[in-house]
Amino acid sequence: MKVVIVGGVAGGASCAARLRRLDEKAEILMVERGPYVSYANCGLPYHVSGVIEKESSLLVATEQTFRTQFAIDCRTRCEVVGISSRQKTVELKNHVSGGVTTEKYDTLVLSPGAAPIRPPLPGIDLPGIFSVRTVPDARSIREWLDRDAADRSGMDSYTGCQLVTVPKRAVVVGGGFIGLEMVENLVQRGLEVTLIEKLDQVMPPLDPEMARLVERYMVKNGVRLELNDGVSGFQPCADGSLEVLTSSGKKHPADIVILAIGVRPETELAKMAGIEIGQCGGIRVDEHMRTSNPDIFAVGDAVEVKDFVTGQWTLIPLAGPANRQGRIAADVIAGRDSRFRGTQGTSICQIFEAAIASTGASEKLLVQIGDKDFEKIYLFPNSHAGYYPGAKMLAIKVLFRKSDGRLLGAQVLGEVGVAKRIDSFAMAIQMGCTIYDLEEAELCYAPPFGSAKDPVNFAGMVAADILRGDMPLCHWDSVDGGFLLDVRNPPELAVESVPGALNIPLTELRARLGELPRDREILVICRSAQRAYYATRILLQNGFKARNISGGMLSRSMLM
Amino acid sequence: MKVVIVGGVAGGASCAARLRRLDEKAEILMVERGPYVSYANCGLPYHVSGVIEKESSLLVATEQTFRTQFAIDCRTRCEVVGISSRQKTVELKNHVSGGVTTEKYDTLVLSPGAAPIRPPLPGIDLPGIFSVRTVPDARSIREWLDRDAADRSGMDSYTGCQLVTVPKRAVVVGGGFIGLEMVENLVQRGLEVTLIEKLDQVMPPLDPEMARLVERYMVKNGVRLELNDGVSGFQPCADGSLEVLTSSGKKHPADIVILAIGVRPETELAKMAGIEIGQCGGIRVDEHMRTSNPDIFAVGDAVEVKDFVTGQWTLIPLAGPANRQGRIAADVIAGRDSRFRGTQGTSICQIFEAAIASTGASEKLLVQIGDKDFEKIYLFPNSHAGYYPGAKMLAIKVLFRKSDGRLLGAQVLGEVGVAKRIDSFAMAIQMGCTIYDLEEAELCYAPPFGSAKDPVNFAGMVAADILRGDMPLCHWDSVDGGFLLDVRNPPELAVESVPGALNIPLTELRARLGELPRDREILVICRSAQRAYYATRILLQNGFKARNISGGMLSRSMLM
Repeated sequence: MKVVIVGGVAGGASCAARLRRLDEKAEILMVERGPYVSYANCGLPYHVSGVIEKESSLLVATEQTFRTQFAIDCRTRCEVVGISSRQKTVELKNHVSGGVTTEKYDTLVLSPGAAPIRPPLPGIDLPGIFSVRTVPDARSIREWLDRDAADRSGMDSYTGCQLVTVPKRAVVVGGGFIGLEMVENLVQRGLEVTLIEKLDQVMPPLDPEMARLVERYMVKNGVRLELNDGVSGFQPCADGSLEVLTSSGKKHPADIVILAIGVRPETELAKMAGIEIGQCGGIRVDEHMRTSNPDIFAVGDAVEVKDFVTGQWTLIPLAGPANRQGRIAADVIAGRDSRFRGTQGTSICQIFEAAIASTGASEKLLVQIGDKDFEKIYLFPNSHAGYYPGAKMLAIKVLFRKSDGRLLGAQVLGEVGVAKRIDSFAMAIQMGCTIYDLEEAELCYAPPFGSAKDPVNFAGMVAADILRGDMPLCHWDSVDGGFLLDVRNPPELAVESVPGALNIPLTELRARLGELPRDREILVICRSAQRAYYATRILLQNGFKARNISGGMLSRSMLM
Repeated sequence: MKVVIVGGVAGGASCAARLRRLDEKAEILMVERGPYVSYANCGLPYHVSGVIEKESSLLVATEQTFRTQFAIDCRTRCEVVGISSRQKTVELKNHVSGGVTTEKYDTLVLSPGAAPIRPPLPGIDLPGIFSVRTVPDARSIREWLDRDAADRSGMDSYTGCQLVTVPKRAVVVGGGFIGLEMVENLVQRGLEVTLIEKLDQVMPPLDPEMARLVERYMVKNGVRLELNDGVSGFQPCADGSLEVLTSSGKKHPADIVILAIGVRPETELAKMAGIEIGQCGGIRVDEHMRTSNPDIFAVGDAVEVKDFVTGQWTLIPLAGPANRQGRIAADVIAGRDSRFRGTQGTSICQIFEAAIASTGASEKLLVQIGDKDFEKIYLFPNSHAGYYPGAKMLAIKVLFRKSDGRLLGAQVLGEVGVAKRIDSFAMAIQMGCTIYDLEEAELCYAPPFGSAKDPVNFAGMVAADILRGDMPLCHWDSVDGGFLLDVRNPPELAVESVPGALNIPLTELRARLGELPRDREILVICRSAQRAYYATRILLQNGFKARNISGGMLSRSMLM
């Protein structure tokens, strides 16, 4: 059996190594267009800043590793330029020698990845505009920044001015994962950074109100944020720098531009092979990672996958699923019945002191597919016991089925303990947890690490209070017409109050019920919705109609 | 309905607050023997060191909070001195006035907690010997240490010696959670600390070989460790200090002694009420937290609970379960059908730079109950992507069912990312995950937080390799008679080698198969068992009998 694997990074490399372990006799040829296999593309932004100092650190396994450890014929700088699925052959171009050879295959695995989108804008090929996909990309960016630094210090000594560190100006286009990571790492390098994003929010997996919090961290760290504005072109300046032009007519000066608009599945080879492309533009595969041609498998960022929560086809270019898909393809090729269960899009991104993470469905995705059987909650618990130093507030949004309590999605943002919580939610979603299961979860607790009621428990409790009918909920976008009752203490109101709300501190509520209307729905406000919950319980049991406003003043601040 | 709740800390306070939310009309009386309710007893060790600076930080909610926010008759320094379950009354002694009153109850909730064990050893009541249970305990320890410091500095100036910080000597007796936390916090305060533990390991929830790693961290931080030695008594010295005498005849000088031998459920009240005590010595309750008397509930450290994994009765005095039990008792009292699902013993403890965590069953527990249907693995993955700075090695032990792959328990130790992994394992155990589910878990990954294959995935993959028959396993305690093959590279062997093992580096194995016996089982060794896995695959597919030694040299170092 001869297996040809096209692409030697996450999915391809995983597939090759796994296949060798399962089948010592298979003939395995893995080809990679670029100079490196199995490199850490997720580390590229951190290499630009020097946080990851050495380029060699990014090379997880080399061509040599694949040859000697895995007995795999591994060829870099080798591109597939033709596929004949009828003859079951690929044409390989050796980019060093320039020669083209033909190889037969019994099974072909496509793992070409996804390419950074580079729209045909005026000036897009000007020097100083970069994408971030490969080790050579990161090297080019570093060289560009270093060269520029050298130039400037030369200029300074020529003009006789005092040698100062001139902050250089970077424009990052696109506020997704790579865009945000590049923003952080360019700031880390001392650049002035402007982020331009066409949408009204950064970090598309998040809902917009959660993205607001991310945007605040960026502004706090000196990033200029330009939302709702697309790039229309680039033009060169006399001093060798660039100007980035936007749809709204603005011009942003830049010594370097990073394009991080998104990626597009590489499907040229798939089209060449005549296999089916799906509705999202990725290669269509079944749960065994087999394409419409039974001899051809595809894995990684080039394929579209089933969303584990919604069942919809989607594109989720992440390293974890790519690796698992590679393993599964290898299993199936070796005659096993492995299946890919779909992707829930679990992800995390560091942005300065904060981490942003999500798993499962977002509210906007549920709305987009017309799903109305869900409720959402906001909560703002401490990362660990408040009495132990270093606790930070987490902002958590949780989505769950109204009809049966099934957990649908979670978004977590904060400075401490974010990864821990998103992984608990991710495991919960995988196992079909309900919010009642979250109530009962037994997570670790010691003062430096958590709380006796962990934020994940707390999310379950709040959600269960709603579904059990103990705490009718409303959201800030639907408070019109309700009677607003603020149960905070007067000093808190002095800082920020809600126009038109009656203030009765929680501790006085039982004695002052007479001041409240019995014919209107009372919407209860406090800082985080906890005291408002207590108040709601008092009101409901005294015959009032009452709802708690989810997340209280803290969620209001995300929306205003 | 009148509900009397005895004990106002974790379980009792949770029960009281929840009951008020569910029933605005119930008459609720909560009595607490000590001066504080709802205090953070888990924070006490950190207050001794000053990491938690203010005593007031430990007071999560006060008597006043319960009165004004929850309309609960909350009385501190008020002890139950008599129960008549026939008349449904309790006798309350007010420790301020000395008066005794009688209160009727419809429902009684016992949440008396567990008391530190103080064996009747000679000298145990000498000044300078402390337990750590209450806020006054922590205050006494701080005062003792401060007073001592004042004495010494006075003495120094009297003798005219240069003022130096004289390290004081502490002896901590008992190496469980509180013992270890006290060790850390006393070292933090600058004391010389000796830990005396009767068993052959610290941290009883861990298996002994995992505890070895904890012990190394202690020794590295200057702690004197005395395992396998029990305390036989205490005697006063002329200078006002103490000597701690042990069974082996040693004498340890001490300026302060902390007793942390363990806790014993407080069952005096239960006995007074004539309710059933279970086989572990805790109050016996059903899944509704109801005792053998239908009008009496019990929650928290005083009750025995079902181990969620093994189904055995056990004592697990932890704050998380106590809080949940309090809520469940309140639910049931308010007429709901809530049930406690048992405890899986999820716990974590910080000890210097490391964290130690576990969930589910340990190997020694499975052995103790005669369960043979399990396998164990050791793995040593990085806390996050190795190419990103700050990654640290985790030591993980995972236990799972041989017959169906169900996850039974996990122990995790390391300096970074421990809580995150134990919580994933904990959620997995709760939901009845198999190790195949762990393979497929989609956990968050970005270089600062994880790896494309998270340690939790990695655990699933290794375990699944075993259950699928791809990787026969053996352990260091059963290598006798096997042919040892070490596939590491010669420079690694120069550091440490295994006597009698043949060395063939993995990269040369395919070419040197002729050197290996076909009639003996080959046991393969490498550093962490990864290359040995690759080698095992090569050997099996070439007709050899082979097993991988779990955890390689890294697990060997825990055992030797």
